[in-house]
Amino acid sequence: MGIVVQKFGGTSVADSEKIKNVADAVIKEKLNGNKVIVVVSAMGHTTDNLIKLSKEITSTPLDREMDMLLSTGEQVSMSLLAMAINEKGHKAVSLNAMQVGILTEPNHCRARIVDIKQERVKRHLDNGEIVIIAGFQGITTDGEITTLGRGGSDTSAVALAAAFKADRCDIYSDVEGVYTTDPRVVPTAQKLEVISYEEMLELARVGANVLHPRSVETAKLCDVPMGVRSSFKLDDLGTLIIGVDKMELHKPVTGLACDSSQVRIVICDVPDKPGNAGKLFTLLANCGLSVDMIIQSYARSMGNTNDIAFTIDKNDVPKFDKVAPEIKSIMNPSNIHIDEDIAKVSIVGAGMIDRPGIAATMFETLAKLGINIKMISTSEIKISCLVEKCHAKEAVVALCNVFELDGADIADVKGDLPV
Amino acid sequence: MGIVVQKFGGTSVADSEKIKNVADAVIKEKLNGNKVIVVVSAMGHTTDNLIKLSKEITSTPLDREMDMLLSTGEQVSMSLLAMAINEKGHKAVSLNAMQVGILTEPNHCRARIVDIKQERVKRHLDNGEIVIIAGFQGITTDGEITTLGRGGSDTSAVALAAAFKADRCDIYSDVEGVYTTDPRVVPTAQKLEVISYEEMLELARVGANVLHPRSVETAKLCDVPMGVRSSFKLDDLGTLIIGVDKMELHKPVTGLACDSSQVRIVICDVPDKPGNAGKLFTLLANCGLSVDMIIQSYARSMGNTNDIAFTIDKNDVPKFDKVAPEIKSIMNPSNIHIDEDIAKVSIVGAGMIDRPGIAATMFETLAKLGINIKMISTSEIKISCLVEKCHAKEAVVALCNVFELDGADIADVKGDLPV
Repeated sequence: MGIVVQKFGGTSVADSEKIKNVADAVIKEKLNGNKVIVVVSAMGHTTDNLIKLSKEITSTPLDREMDMLLSTGEQVSMSLLAMAINEKGHKAVSLNAMQVGILTEPNHCRARIVDIKQERVKRHLDNGEIVIIAGFQGITTDGEITTLGRGGSDTSAVALAAAFKADRCDIYSDVEGVYTTDPRVVPTAQKLEVISYEEMLELARVGANVLHPRSVETAKLCDVPMGVRSSFKLDDLGTLIIGVDKMELHKPVTGLACDSSQVRIVICDVPDKPGNAGKLFTLLANCGLSVDMIIQSYARSMGNTNDIAFTIDKNDVPKFDKVAPEIKSIMNPSNIHIDEDIAKVSIVGAGMIDRPGIAATMFETLAKLGINIKMISTSEIKISCLVEKCHAKEAVVALCNVFELDGADIADVKGDLPV
Repeated sequence: MGIVVQKFGGTSVADSEKIKNVADAVIKEKLNGNKVIVVVSAMGHTTDNLIKLSKEITSTPLDREMDMLLSTGEQVSMSLLAMAINEKGHKAVSLNAMQVGILTEPNHCRARIVDIKQERVKRHLDNGEIVIIAGFQGITTDGEITTLGRGGSDTSAVALAAAFKADRCDIYSDVEGVYTTDPRVVPTAQKLEVISYEEMLELARVGANVLHPRSVETAKLCDVPMGVRSSFKLDDLGTLIIGVDKMELHKPVTGLACDSSQVRIVICDVPDKPGNAGKLFTLLANCGLSVDMIIQSYARSMGNTNDIAFTIDKNDVPKFDKVAPEIKSIMNPSNIHIDEDIAKVSIVGAGMIDRPGIAATMFETLAKLGINIKMISTSEIKISCLVEKCHAKEAVVALCNVFELDGADIADVKGDLPV
């Protein structure tokens, strides 16, 4: 008898009818002969509403009290789900992080899990009970309540699956799986049956909003097979995410993503002195700016200066504006240029590793369409190109066609570029 | 430096503005030079809404999961209050029952507190912090979450005041104190500056909805001075509730209450056999029926039968109807009569103990008005009379006049009989 962890997000438990629906999904897994651990998020907009309340009171809430406040959301949904399962004739018990013993670092609002106690959950599982656990939350060894930050509930589920050596950790939401690219841009995009952690991580980082990279990283680290499934289509197996070593590689490129939420910043003519780049990115990190692509040009023959270009989330531009004067005074660039008219198109595939020419094919495909590539960034299994926003959709469609990521005629393309 | 416990009910923390108002009340007490422990209820209708959600899922929720669900309400209000106090420049920390160590019996939905750990709260108080504690909830030694049932938050506050030897336990709500009678019926009713636990208990039991009797009983047992104060009039000291031994007795009657929420049930002609009354009230208790006044008439000379009359809450009539057939088959009464047209008028006063004639004055006052007394029940410091509903207001006004419980002309009387 194996153990399966099922995680249900906020939209899956948004109201009492949906909670009953989730109860069916849980019972189905139990009747398959598995011991079942369920992880839930807060219902629908609960977390947003609690944040709104706190903002009515203060613009600078203490992190400790935010954790106290937000951790109530999961406790509501988990107890309601336990009631719904019991109502349907199966035994279920809900446990919060303190009752399980999900120990985290003593960092509020962004804690990382350091240990999960096994005793209590095992006792309930051995007793034939379905165990429902609050996602997103933990406790410190001092009994303080912490939350895990963004992607927290998915991470709770994966960490529990690792701790209890579960056969599978299924993440249920309103999407049916991982697609070769965004089905809103390319409606013929195919659902993948299987994808590697590495590919999923690259896809997640480049803007496919199915799973938070943190949960995928944890799954990879602990070798937990993850499923991405729809809570509204229980017979659909969704997409399985496993180690690349366990996969048979079919295509060099398994996925494509487009991200138009970034801006490109170019720091022009930075004097070519050792340590300048380090200074720059330390300044950015200190004000909480996450930088994505980074390109430093070769030193120009005349004048010994570099251009340093990078991308950040467009919501972070105000943060950058604050730190810009300091950058100017320290680095003395000739100009700082902010370019909002960009979209990042990325192809991902573990199969790239052994196949040369993928990057060339990508660049040529774009060149044939007359699309200018503003920046390029690559990893072992990913190639990202920055293009002008107006060309993004065209690029996505052409690349899907070239790399066989869609199943039909590109004439079917509809939908807006996701922003 | 003394310790003061302040308890704020659901209406006092119903929204963010009111929570800021409560923060002012707490800070005021702190600036008076006291160490302050605050106990909060859930915001406004939170508990009702959670109960509604649970009912959408099942008509028979497990008690354990109800406690899990309902205990979230206080955690929301306590963290928001902590934020509000911190925003105003004072240090505050919120703690749930698990963090404090409020240990209860392992009974869900109606647990009683057995012990309160001191260490953590003391540490915060000694550190100059205001400590905000979730009312209504506890934990068992196994780490299970319990709730205390009706009157739970008031009881939490009194138990904490007792554990920390507080100078005072102030219960804040939207009423300004304890009145000689219901100000909605007798607008000239006077607010009492001081009242004994015993009198308050009798008033609470006979329908003055200021405090739950359970909290007053706990305060009496532990000798905790309680204050009843308004969270909207912070300069008003409200009513102080203390031991009768510490009071100077001025008037024989300090309070009057009217309760029209009961019905009278008469079981007619029950054979006068030993054990019949015991059987009857066991049957009623087994189906969860709380009985208030009980009168058994003398056995009639002919036929050796008794009439047994008692009152129950009118909401409990359906429960009674269920058990009525069993009563009939076991006790074989000639009839079971349910009388809904009753109101219970009670006078309360510790001063009655030493003064004969109070009961006589009450009965005569009613007789002069031609009001028939249907049932009488007395304790050492309380006399209750059941009258027809239509006469209740008249009785209240006349008794207030006779026992000097109002300050002005009874012609001012307005308002409906509270139901």
